Amino acid sequence: MTDTETFCRAAAALLGPRGFTRDADALEPWLTDWRGRYTGTALGLASPTSTIEVAQFVKLCAEHRIPIVPQGGNSGMSGGATPDPDGTSVILSLRRMAEIRSFAPASEQITCDAGVVLQTLHETAAEKGLRFPLTLGGKGSATIGGLISTNAGGTQVLRHGTMRAQVLGLEAVLADGSVFSNLVPLKKDNRGFDLKQMLIGSEGTLGIVTAATLRLLPDIADRRVVWVGLENLTQARALLRHCEAAAGAALEGFEVLPAHCLDAVLDYLPDARAPLTSPHPWYALIELVASRGAADRLDQLTETVFTEAMERALLGDAVIASSEQQAEDFWQLRESISPAERAIGPAMQHDISVPVDRMPDFVDSVSPEIEHAFPGTLALGFGHLGDGNIHYHVLAPADAIPGDWEAGDGKAISAMVHDRVTEFGGSISAEHGIGQMKRDELGRLGDPVALGMMRAVKQALDPQGILNPGKLVPLAPSAAST
Amino acid sequence: MTDTETFCRAAAALLGPRGFTRDADALEPWLTDWRGRYTGTALGLASPTSTIEVAQFVKLCAEHRIPIVPQGGNSGMSGGATPDPDGTSVILSLRRMAEIRSFAPASEQITCDAGVVLQTLHETAAEKGLRFPLTLGGKGSATIGGLISTNAGGTQVLRHGTMRAQVLGLEAVLADGSVFSNLVPLKKDNRGFDLKQMLIGSEGTLGIVTAATLRLLPDIADRRVVWVGLENLTQARALLRHCEAAAGAALEGFEVLPAHCLDAVLDYLPDARAPLTSPHPWYALIELVASRGAADRLDQLTETVFTEAMERALLGDAVIASSEQQAEDFWQLRESISPAERAIGPAMQHDISVPVDRMPDFVDSVSPEIEHAFPGTLALGFGHLGDGNIHYHVLAPADAIPGDWEAGDGKAISAMVHDRVTEFGGSISAEHGIGQMKRDELGRLGDPVALGMMRAVKQALDPQGILNPGKLVPLAPSAAST
Repeated sequence: MTDTETFCRAAAALLGPRGFTRDADALEPWLTDWRGRYTGTALGLASPTSTIEVAQFVKLCAEHRIPIVPQGGNSGMSGGATPDPDGTSVILSLRRMAEIRSFAPASEQITCDAGVVLQTLHETAAEKGLRFPLTLGGKGSATIGGLISTNAGGTQVLRHGTMRAQVLGLEAVLADGSVFSNLVPLKKDNRGFDLKQMLIGSEGTLGIVTAATLRLLPDIADRRVVWVGLENLTQARALLRHCEAAAGAALEGFEVLPAHCLDAVLDYLPDARAPLTSPHPWYALIELVASRGAADRLDQLTETVFTEAMERALLGDAVIASSEQQAEDFWQLRESISPAERAIGPAMQHDISVPVDRMPDFVDSVSPEIEHAFPGTLALGFGHLGDGNIHYHVLAPADAIPGDWEAGDGKAISAMVHDRVTEFGGSISAEHGIGQMKRDELGRLGDPVALGMMRAVKQALDPQGILNPGKLVPLAPSAAST
Repeated sequence: MTDTETFCRAAAALLGPRGFTRDADALEPWLTDWRGRYTGTALGLASPTSTIEVAQFVKLCAEHRIPIVPQGGNSGMSGGATPDPDGTSVILSLRRMAEIRSFAPASEQITCDAGVVLQTLHETAAEKGLRFPLTLGGKGSATIGGLISTNAGGTQVLRHGTMRAQVLGLEAVLADGSVFSNLVPLKKDNRGFDLKQMLIGSEGTLGIVTAATLRLLPDIADRRVVWVGLENLTQARALLRHCEAAAGAALEGFEVLPAHCLDAVLDYLPDARAPLTSPHPWYALIELVASRGAADRLDQLTETVFTEAMERALLGDAVIASSEQQAEDFWQLRESISPAERAIGPAMQHDISVPVDRMPDFVDSVSPEIEHAFPGTLALGFGHLGDGNIHYHVLAPADAIPGDWEAGDGKAISAMVHDRVTEFGGSISAEHGIGQMKRDELGRLGDPVALGMMRAVKQALDPQGILNPGKLVPLAPSAAST
């Protein structure tokens, strides 16, 4: 019996038939990332139901040196949860660990297993008049463990921060099967290195998140959603500053999009209508919110903020959604940009950030450069201006051959975008993570000192390299060049 | 020539006569911590003036395996910046690196050298209508580098978080003399492990902070400071919850103290007066603030919050400071507790946290236990109830012999306090750090898995062990037992 077979038998004995399978049909959905960019194979699929089972299983993997690919909802953007094609690794799904362990509404805290789906968390919080202040398109499949491991973002980061800011306590299984347990939240704790933050965003390369204690906030009592027409991104930035100063904590979101994105969405959604009657080069979608007790002042605040903005020529035109339905319609325009762009044809998509103040410069200088270097392309930025994070898409020329274009010009365009982002002091991954998609680009453009620290920490905490190998951490220069 | 002499000559050649000294008088003030608990000796005192000099000096130390004790204002609470008595290490002072590198008031960001003193930062921010939202007693000496390395707290953590939450970008010199440079702040950046947070609070054991980019906030336009009389800590906790719900972001501080602390302060400060005419077992000091534009609503908010609290029997009595002078007087009562207690006699002081909800239980159950086990002692907790962090002091019996008592009963009392804190899921160091003072207690009571991770990370980033050895990171069990 080979060692692999020994391992698989031991895994099956440990986890039972529902907990460990090698059945091809059962494995198939989890071997490809949801965007269809990466496909791998795996020895088997492990689905433990408790932290103890995860720990025992990881220990077994460590004994046999079997690489582990942790997986939550399989809705990541960078292939971080997809196994290698060589088939030597095992997928460790956290989806069967989906209990709410404890919920203390009065303390505004909830402790969940890693496999709890984001939408379930939202619904559980809402039942008690609370909310979890992070959401994103994949909320119906994304799990708490995956969101923590990738430090997920979304449209509420401006006000509430990324996943990193929501995690009060964490439990994770380390590479040797030991359990790091730090679920009891302390507001102040200065007992050494911040191991919790080290694990958050490490994409399963330092440990496997099994549970977390999360902060909740009082539910929103009311919101005002405003659609604004703008001349350019510089005006958008000025309006953002004004909203931050004038609305303060009430400013919940500030998204921008160019005219082309709105046009694409209007083509894509037959029933959708442009919020403003006349066209503008740029638009902003702004949300102001109020909690219970402050809701009666929300109309007045919205009025003040936007009247003053109008007087100071910080916007071209604006419309306040007159109903919750219209507010949702406005948001649907924003959320349909990605599918609408995809319907047009191939595009290279970049999830980048630069310092907030430099974003207008970045778009205004880099877009013409790319469109000049690659005739027929169209470069578009949209998204979270308030965070300095835009999704920067470069659409292929009309005559591009899908597949060929991405592998040729597309790749060169991405390298150019990443080069420019780096020159602007920005990040080649603002919120989607590194995974396998951007690992080599991080190796090419990352600060060598920071990369050295990452490799050293990875080696220290996972000396056998069994936790999600090939993801996130770029190879050392000597290894990469061989 | 010994290797030590070779090193010292090379250091003097590198840094010049002002940058490196072995003069006993020049060294003397920096060999003892400000509370006089620890005294060491050192090979010399290095005072570089730039990051490049720090890097070159650390490289030199690495070549000669000379241990480095980084030091800012030398106002730490745990002996973390005091060298060992064996005299083999060198003190690396950052005090001569004290430039503001850049200040962008519109972006509410400032980049400072590590040696900038906190009070200077406050004054620089105030000149532009901004503020840095962290302060503490030692603000006239504490440096930005020291505050970051110890993840300092203070009285504004409730609303604004510890130092960890203020740092947008960081520069640090690592154990091999390489420079980790991450000063350009990005609101979103998912390029791997959070190395910045790993360095913050690591007490100079993983790297030497040389500069940071910090967030600033709009200055406060007005404040209301309220002194409240209370029955017990359970009532204080209920009042805290009410204030959080009713005042929201306006709640800037919530400190508690027992009657004994107020009495001690009134004895200690001859001109001070009790804010309330009748005595109460406990008091709370509460601050509500407003930024520009919201100041006119502050009186109404304060009125609403405390009228409602009175109606709901959440307090015994309350007085709102009628002037800024009186507000300062109220705060002076709070800030004089530590010196007032010291004037009474010896005390064992503990900087602890437990989950906020469990704090009343902790004090109510542990204090009688200690006072029973050690007759004549008095156990008192005061401080940051909103953070679950209290300074828990146990006063010696009147007939205790100073020195003897601390070494005997005092030590046993501290062990008992730390045992109970650990049972309550709390931290033996909420904000003062570990340094040399609590290193062995952390080794005794810390989670072995977390300690193992800390040791592995320390070994990975400082394999020679030259960065502040003997501080923070407990020895491995095998080494500790030999």
